[in-house]
Amino acid sequence: MNRAKSSQPEVATLFIAASEGDSNLYYATRFVAPDPFIYLEIKGERVLVISDLEMDRAKAQASADRVLSYSEVERRAKEQGVKEPTSIDIVHSILRQAGVRHLLVPANFPFIHATRLQELGYSLKAKRDPFYERRVVKTADEVRHIEAAQRATEEAVAAAHTALRQATIRDQELWSDGAPLTSERVKKLINMKLMERDCIAQHTIVAGGEQACDPHHEGSGPLPAGRSIIFDVFPRSASSRYFADMSRTVMRGKATPELTRLYQTVKDAQEEAIDKVKDGADGAKIHHGICARFDKAGYKTGLVNGRMQGYFHGTGHGVGLDIHEAPRISRTGSLLQEGHVVTVEPGLYYPGLGAVRIEDMVLVTKDGCRNLTNFPKTFELDS
Amino acid sequence: MNRAKSSQPEVATLFIAASEGDSNLYYATRFVAPDPFIYLEIKGERVLVISDLEMDRAKAQASADRVLSYSEVERRAKEQGVKEPTSIDIVHSILRQAGVRHLLVPANFPFIHATRLQELGYSLKAKRDPFYERRVVKTADEVRHIEAAQRATEEAVAAAHTALRQATIRDQELWSDGAPLTSERVKKLINMKLMERDCIAQHTIVAGGEQACDPHHEGSGPLPAGRSIIFDVFPRSASSRYFADMSRTVMRGKATPELTRLYQTVKDAQEEAIDKVKDGADGAKIHHGICARFDKAGYKTGLVNGRMQGYFHGTGHGVGLDIHEAPRISRTGSLLQEGHVVTVEPGLYYPGLGAVRIEDMVLVTKDGCRNLTNFPKTFELDS
Repeated sequence: MNRAKSSQPEVATLFIAASEGDSNLYYATRFVAPDPFIYLEIKGERVLVISDLEMDRAKAQASADRVLSYSEVERRAKEQGVKEPTSIDIVHSILRQAGVRHLLVPANFPFIHATRLQELGYSLKAKRDPFYERRVVKTADEVRHIEAAQRATEEAVAAAHTALRQATIRDQELWSDGAPLTSERVKKLINMKLMERDCIAQHTIVAGGEQACDPHHEGSGPLPAGRSIIFDVFPRSASSRYFADMSRTVMRGKATPELTRLYQTVKDAQEEAIDKVKDGADGAKIHHGICARFDKAGYKTGLVNGRMQGYFHGTGHGVGLDIHEAPRISRTGSLLQEGHVVTVEPGLYYPGLGAVRIEDMVLVTKDGCRNLTNFPKTFELDS
Repeated sequence: MNRAKSSQPEVATLFIAASEGDSNLYYATRFVAPDPFIYLEIKGERVLVISDLEMDRAKAQASADRVLSYSEVERRAKEQGVKEPTSIDIVHSILRQAGVRHLLVPANFPFIHATRLQELGYSLKAKRDPFYERRVVKTADEVRHIEAAQRATEEAVAAAHTALRQATIRDQELWSDGAPLTSERVKKLINMKLMERDCIAQHTIVAGGEQACDPHHEGSGPLPAGRSIIFDVFPRSASSRYFADMSRTVMRGKATPELTRLYQTVKDAQEEAIDKVKDGADGAKIHHGICARFDKAGYKTGLVNGRMQGYFHGTGHGVGLDIHEAPRISRTGSLLQEGHVVTVEPGLYYPGLGAVRIEDMVLVTKDGCRNLTNFPKTFELDS
């Protein structure tokens, strides 16, 4: 391969990031590091530049063609007269040797590095997510990882629902073991069950009554009886690093007809949306379909007393190495494609009445989808 | 205040990031969100621009002077003729109204946004960490948060050491409950204990024997008897979002004189380094002091058979909302200052012999430091 002779200028891909917090870099290298390192795709070769501290691990674990020692390249740069080489000097030294002047970087590439590279004469082009298109289409292995995290999620939520079923009701609050059954207690139960399965749950939502009307309220204090309680659980597997995501809405006590209708409306809308998911379907259309359906059923969306109510979030998002990734089933939605893993999670939120959100995770197939969620949709836990 | 009349041009601070993964933005707003939002410091006012989904939470939780609705500003931008406003159009609309053309952004500000802002005529200046200097100097509250996470860490490691003490030794491996006591089992015990205390542990290290010679190897398989085992535990409090960090090295069985000497050398070096920590001390000097001490004691550092051995990581780092933050006690070290919270964690790594790392977390004071760690340094758990 001699690309230098082609008329297209050679373009190298460059990351400088901590893969712990950058899923594109982790996807490219399969190497987790807490501090920034350099990754280059240059003339068909994938090169890591790694500190001495991470060298052994990188050689053993990273998916790359070459692993260079940062201190080695630094030493060479010093020999060439650079007094205190920065990470950009290190990159420059490698690129100069390869004769490459054009760089493709991720959209979140640090501005401070970009500026310095431009000063050195490089041209940079940023690419939005999905930086690696193939990351959006899940392999069989990736689907297995997501499903494993989902099985753990289901076990944890099942244990939590058992705790709710076993609770007694006093003064319209749930009690268990002589104390109020609080959001905090139930979240801890879920998070511990997940940790037992090597899944790390953060921001788990167990929010009842008025709290649930704020879709991202994590919930606190005693759980109410007679009102809906939203569970939204989205852990990451510590081993595979893939996420799962599921929401269920339940209640203890007897639901009012208004609350039952709210639940049934969301459930029907979710099932209709799942029915529409298939290769080639338009995420924006699916989302607008839900909005129209809610509106037609009399569930209006908008500001009331300075607070949003109705349906004011997207219908779904991709799930993988990030909890929110491409594609989207929302007003800025994208075309769905075989191999996408997406959530379908409509919800309705009315202070005073309550809130319902129901979320499954599905794998898009040629003719429809395969639901990766295996958990009942039961509203009244007493029955 | 009328800064417009001064000769200095008005400079606004701008973040566009998900505060979940950006500690500067969390520090500024005390608001955690999983998706990017806009934050501006503009003419002395701190402004958030937030999606409808996060509006309620932001109003209740965020530290800001004004919380604007993204969809509101978007609607206004559309009225002014912008067809499909991007987040940069939203920022532009606010800055134009304020008459500000100069921006201060964090070093990791996304290049793609920076480029678009420059095209619109803005001048951008990136600032390296510490972006907020005051973030490096911990308040009494912040120290309390770090100490609380540290207490949980100590409880968890104590439970793990009890498990090691109670293990039996078979064929130079630790056994417990009829099965090998593995790194995985001990890490799970630690992580579960921490979750019980609302602390989230990731990448916990319990690595014995040869594995420990790679400082970031997390450990796997049966734990060895007669060899050193490194524990490095650094959870984040789910409630306060502050980290703690502690390492201990222990062993079961009788240490050889060589291993005992290795342990004692690291322990003495750590204590000497802690003695040197005080307001005004030079982090680089402290680090070089340790390097020299090890070298003088005959513990050489360098590549042997293509693998680093000896002392090849920094002596310490700041701990706070990030696990690694300013200041550093390393070859690129900074001056220490009253109120810094730093680790002191020398280590020695020799394949064949084994590895030792001992780490405390200390609060820098005027005349010395206060050790925030309250955990014994015991090498042989049998005794």
